[in-house]
Amino acid sequence: MMKTGILYGVGVGPGDPELMTVKAWRLISTTSTIAYLAANGQKSVARQIAEPFIAEGAKEIALDVPMHTAREPAQLAYDAGAAVIASQLEDGNDVVVLCEGDPFFYGSFMYIFARLSQRYTTVVVPGVTSLTASAAVLGRPLAARNEILKVLPATLNADLLYRELKGVESAAIIKVGRHFTKVREILEALRLIDHAVVIEKATHVEERIVPARDILSASIPYFSTILIYAGAEEW
Amino acid sequence: MMKTGILYGVGVGPGDPELMTVKAWRLISTTSTIAYLAANGQKSVARQIAEPFIAEGAKEIALDVPMHTAREPAQLAYDAGAAVIASQLEDGNDVVVLCEGDPFFYGSFMYIFARLSQRYTTVVVPGVTSLTASAAVLGRPLAARNEILKVLPATLNADLLYRELKGVESAAIIKVGRHFTKVREILEALRLIDHAVVIEKATHVEERIVPARDILSASIPYFSTILIYAGAEEW
Repeated sequence: MMKTGILYGVGVGPGDPELMTVKAWRLISTTSTIAYLAANGQKSVARQIAEPFIAEGAKEIALDVPMHTAREPAQLAYDAGAAVIASQLEDGNDVVVLCEGDPFFYGSFMYIFARLSQRYTTVVVPGVTSLTASAAVLGRPLAARNEILKVLPATLNADLLYRELKGVESAAIIKVGRHFTKVREILEALRLIDHAVVIEKATHVEERIVPARDILSASIPYFSTILIYAGAEEW
Repeated sequence: MMKTGILYGVGVGPGDPELMTVKAWRLISTTSTIAYLAANGQKSVARQIAEPFIAEGAKEIALDVPMHTAREPAQLAYDAGAAVIASQLEDGNDVVVLCEGDPFFYGSFMYIFARLSQRYTTVVVPGVTSLTASAAVLGRPLAARNEILKVLPATLNADLLYRELKGVESAAIIKVGRHFTKVREILEALRLIDHAVVIEKATHVEERIVPARDILSASIPYFSTILIYAGAEEW
C-alpha cells in the first residue's frame, strides 16, 4: 500500500516574509504541493508572503471560498477544497496549506483541519500573529506584567463589545472592516478613543499606522487590528 | 563620530528552535553580542532555544535579574543590564537580546526597551508565542470565528479571575506556577475544569500536556499555560 502524504497547516506570519519561521520556510521550499485560500476569488495574501520561498514548478491549489455570505456556500467550498487536497495526500504527496499569521488564531485552516485531520497525518506549524507584529511596529508591549489581554472580534454586538471593553487594560479588536463606526462609537463612549491605534498590514510593505481618532471613514480594511492601551503607563 | 550599534529585541519562539523566524535566525547568527535574561541566576531558556544559531566566539551578556521578590531589586538589575548593553552599543556593536516567545507579549524585554529605545535605534522582532504553539500541539484552534479570547495572568486575585472566566469561550491562563490551586478551584466552581488543559513547554523537547483535572499538585511550572475551550464545538 502506498504511503499517504502529510498535511501541513503552515503559518506564514503577518506580512514580512522574513517573519516566517525557519520550519515554515523549510516546508514551503521543499514541498511540491502548496494550497491556500483565495477568498471570493481574490489573490491570497498568504501566498504573496510565501512567494519568495515556493519551489519552482510546485503545484498550486487555490481554494476559492465565498466569504461574507451565508454559511453554507463556504462550507461547500471547504468540502470541495478538502477533497482536492485529499486526492493529493492519497497520491502520496505532502500538502502545505499556507495560512496568514497563525493557522489556529482565528484562521480558516480549521475548516480544512476538521475535514482531514482524522484521516491523514496533520502537522500545524504556528506562526507570528498580526497582534504581536503590530505591537512590535508600534514599539509598545501588547500586554505586560499582570494585565488582562482581550481579543475581541468587531463582529460582536455593540452591547457585548461595550461590556468587554469597559475597564480594559489591553485589548485588540480584530476583523474590524465595515464595523468601524460601531467600534468607534463604543471607544468614544468609554473614553478609550485616544488610547486606540489602527494598524493595517503590520510589517508588510503596505503597513499603515493611524490613531483611531483620525479615521473618518465608516470602514477600514478587514485585516486591520485596533490595539488599545489603557493600562498603567509605568514600566 | 563613531556610529552606535542597533539594539534588537528578538523573539526566539516557544521552544523548538525551528519555530524561530528567519529574521531571528539571521540576526542571531550574524550578531556578535548576544544578551539574555538569567532570572535568579538560572539558565536562560531563550538562550537554550537560540543556541544552535549563536555564532562561535560571540560575546554573551547574561542579565541576572532577581525575580519573585520586591520590585526594586529587579529594577536595579535592569538598570545595570541596560548599562552593560549601552556600552556595547556605544562601541558600535549591535546587540541582540534573546526573548522567549515574543519580546512584547508579557516579556521582560520591555524593561530594557524602556531604558534604551530613546537613545539607540531599536528593532523589535516578533516571535511565535507559547499560546499559538500550545494550540498547534493540542490540535485545536486557540480562538475561532467570533469568539472572544482572553489572556489572564494567574497572579490576578480570585474574584477578578472568576468574573473574567465566567461565560468565557476561549481563554489562556498564563504565569500559573504556584497559583494553580486557586485557578483549579475557580475552574471547578465555573464547571470549566473539564474544558481546561495544561501545556508545559509547548514544542520543546520537554513538552507535556495534561488535562487540568488530572493535576493534583498545588503548583505547576511557571511557564505553563492553561488553555480553556468552552465555545461551541461545531466547526
